[in-house]
Amino acid sequence: MRFREALGRISPYVPGKSIEEVKKKYGLDKVVKLASNENPYGANPKAIKAFKSFESLHIYPDPDPEDLRQKIGEYVGYEAERIVVGAGIDGVMENIFKLFVEPGDRIVIPIPSFPYYHILTRVCGAFDVRVRRKRNFTIDVRSLLDAITEKTKIVLVCSPNNPTGNVENEEVVKEIVESCNVLVFVDEAYGEFSSKNLLRFAEYENVVVARTFSKAFGLANLRIGYAVVPEEIRKEYLKVSTPFPLSTPAKFAAMAALEDRKFLKFVVEKTREERERVGKKLREIGVKVYPSEANFILIETPIKSSELAEELLKRGIIVRDCSKFIGCNEYHVRVSIGRKEENDLFIEAMEDIVCS
Amino acid sequence: MRFREALGRISPYVPGKSIEEVKKKYGLDKVVKLASNENPYGANPKAIKAFKSFESLHIYPDPDPEDLRQKIGEYVGYEAERIVVGAGIDGVMENIFKLFVEPGDRIVIPIPSFPYYHILTRVCGAFDVRVRRKRNFTIDVRSLLDAITEKTKIVLVCSPNNPTGNVENEEVVKEIVESCNVLVFVDEAYGEFSSKNLLRFAEYENVVVARTFSKAFGLANLRIGYAVVPEEIRKEYLKVSTPFPLSTPAKFAAMAALEDRKFLKFVVEKTREERERVGKKLREIGVKVYPSEANFILIETPIKSSELAEELLKRGIIVRDCSKFIGCNEYHVRVSIGRKEENDLFIEAMEDIVCS
Repeated sequence: MRFREALGRISPYVPGKSIEEVKKKYGLDKVVKLASNENPYGANPKAIKAFKSFESLHIYPDPDPEDLRQKIGEYVGYEAERIVVGAGIDGVMENIFKLFVEPGDRIVIPIPSFPYYHILTRVCGAFDVRVRRKRNFTIDVRSLLDAITEKTKIVLVCSPNNPTGNVENEEVVKEIVESCNVLVFVDEAYGEFSSKNLLRFAEYENVVVARTFSKAFGLANLRIGYAVVPEEIRKEYLKVSTPFPLSTPAKFAAMAALEDRKFLKFVVEKTREERERVGKKLREIGVKVYPSEANFILIETPIKSSELAEELLKRGIIVRDCSKFIGCNEYHVRVSIGRKEENDLFIEAMEDIVCS
Repeated sequence: MRFREALGRISPYVPGKSIEEVKKKYGLDKVVKLASNENPYGANPKAIKAFKSFESLHIYPDPDPEDLRQKIGEYVGYEAERIVVGAGIDGVMENIFKLFVEPGDRIVIPIPSFPYYHILTRVCGAFDVRVRRKRNFTIDVRSLLDAITEKTKIVLVCSPNNPTGNVENEEVVKEIVESCNVLVFVDEAYGEFSSKNLLRFAEYENVVVARTFSKAFGLANLRIGYAVVPEEIRKEYLKVSTPFPLSTPAKFAAMAALEDRKFLKFVVEKTREERERVGKKLREIGVKVYPSEANFILIETPIKSSELAEELLKRGIIVRDCSKFIGCNEYHVRVSIGRKEENDLFIEAMEDIVCS
């Protein structure tokens, strides 16, 4: 009995610390978590109600829920026959990898980006080919195209990019999609928070655009992801997907969330407003804040990110030290945009740390 | 862009027909589903209550829930540090495959057994090596050991076996486990319904024993599986598992279900009682009924299984035609044990079909 060699190259995904852990460790009463880009306004109350309405938990869920795909299709402007669902974008991405990736293949990842891309690539026994982004964190299209070889199966495009917050230029995406016959996986987990999206690229036969209910829709706990895919991919996707990717209560929650656009609009507007306010305040005290179109910001100070994160923890604020993210430097910290009062606590703590 | 060659060898998993589909197709008011081995007594009301108690759906769930692992550990008699969780046994099994299986490897499957084993094996690019079971459907240990080569990574042992219902002999399992240095994956999805289990084999370093909340606990919709694994496997498992395998409401439901053993006992006793009664009735009308220790029975009549299933559908009863299960014959039909009134409808329909 021996483990696959590929496992030796994987470090496990490290999720953010929980509020309870931090309360315990630092003896704090109030702790604010700005580390996992969760929706601080909570799930839509109508989604919670729909979630609770289903009690037949002993019955297997629908393996390929048409009603939900229909509603998603209307939302993104594509046919239900073009939609696949999965356990979060992670689940969708894993299935897409199963369709194309063999050990020894190459996955091109513009860095820095979402750490799970590297993990999944290595779990598949493939190589994560890293292409450094430009100074403004958009993709360097020349370097990216140069990195593509016969062994390249997927190019990962995250927009707005996690953890940098920038959206990708449409011209860049167009050039990538049109110049190579490789699958381009567009991760728009934070798409709703942005002023523009890349959904139109789903018209190409080598593009998958993935979205989630975890962020703007506030249903992170239920792991509901989806993607617009070419029809041919959908057929194959159903072969490799786990038989029952979504529970029925989760499906109902997602459908209710899609029906109530008012709540979504409120969340997005509030988040943008607070994002600008937090950015302005931080810049005023000399913190470098990268422009963001997501529900988080990437910041840089003269203090090392591990120290800054630790100082913030002591003050009851959990943020994400990005120094271990491939392609980040040791001063990068990602901070989720919370409710006004949470952001105020964060700003106060930053003033306290940075100005002392 | 080209799909992995392995996909060409996969037919998608075909879940049973839904009650709604059958009502529509045959114009029926009442339809009974005895096709997916669901718990006809429903989920434990306390589990449903616990499920609904969690409303913070916007927060990511615990990636490796210790509280649930603790309770599972007490239930199966192993340390929490030996327990892993996943999205159903399917999810657990997929993660275990990721630890060991490379394209070209061999997975040994005593047939007939659960069809998903073959699908998952092929999704991994491995070969499903089929070892025919003995006439009573227990494993033919000689043939099985003969089938193991250097390329063999996993042997699958399902007990009680789906779709045949028999439990595996402990001596056979002992011989397999001790004679080969291959991982033995014991699937005890139906373990609670049986008079004996194989949990003690989890003491071996090359054995994983998987269980689920989908069957006796009546939580199929929530996809909660777990396994007792060697400590070394747990460490690697956490590397390849999706970051958040279980939602918090699902975790709460599972914990509540484990606390209320009375309900579990009721379900198991009722099921066994009905299993014996249905078996007896069917034998009286000349139907061959294989001895079962699960919540379903495998039957055989002189009528082809596709025809029998169709005749039953017309009468509002959904069963599982097993003729397409690898290793089954074209007369095999699997029938879940339902509530008394559901079973009565099934018996009546069988009398009508078989005796006419």
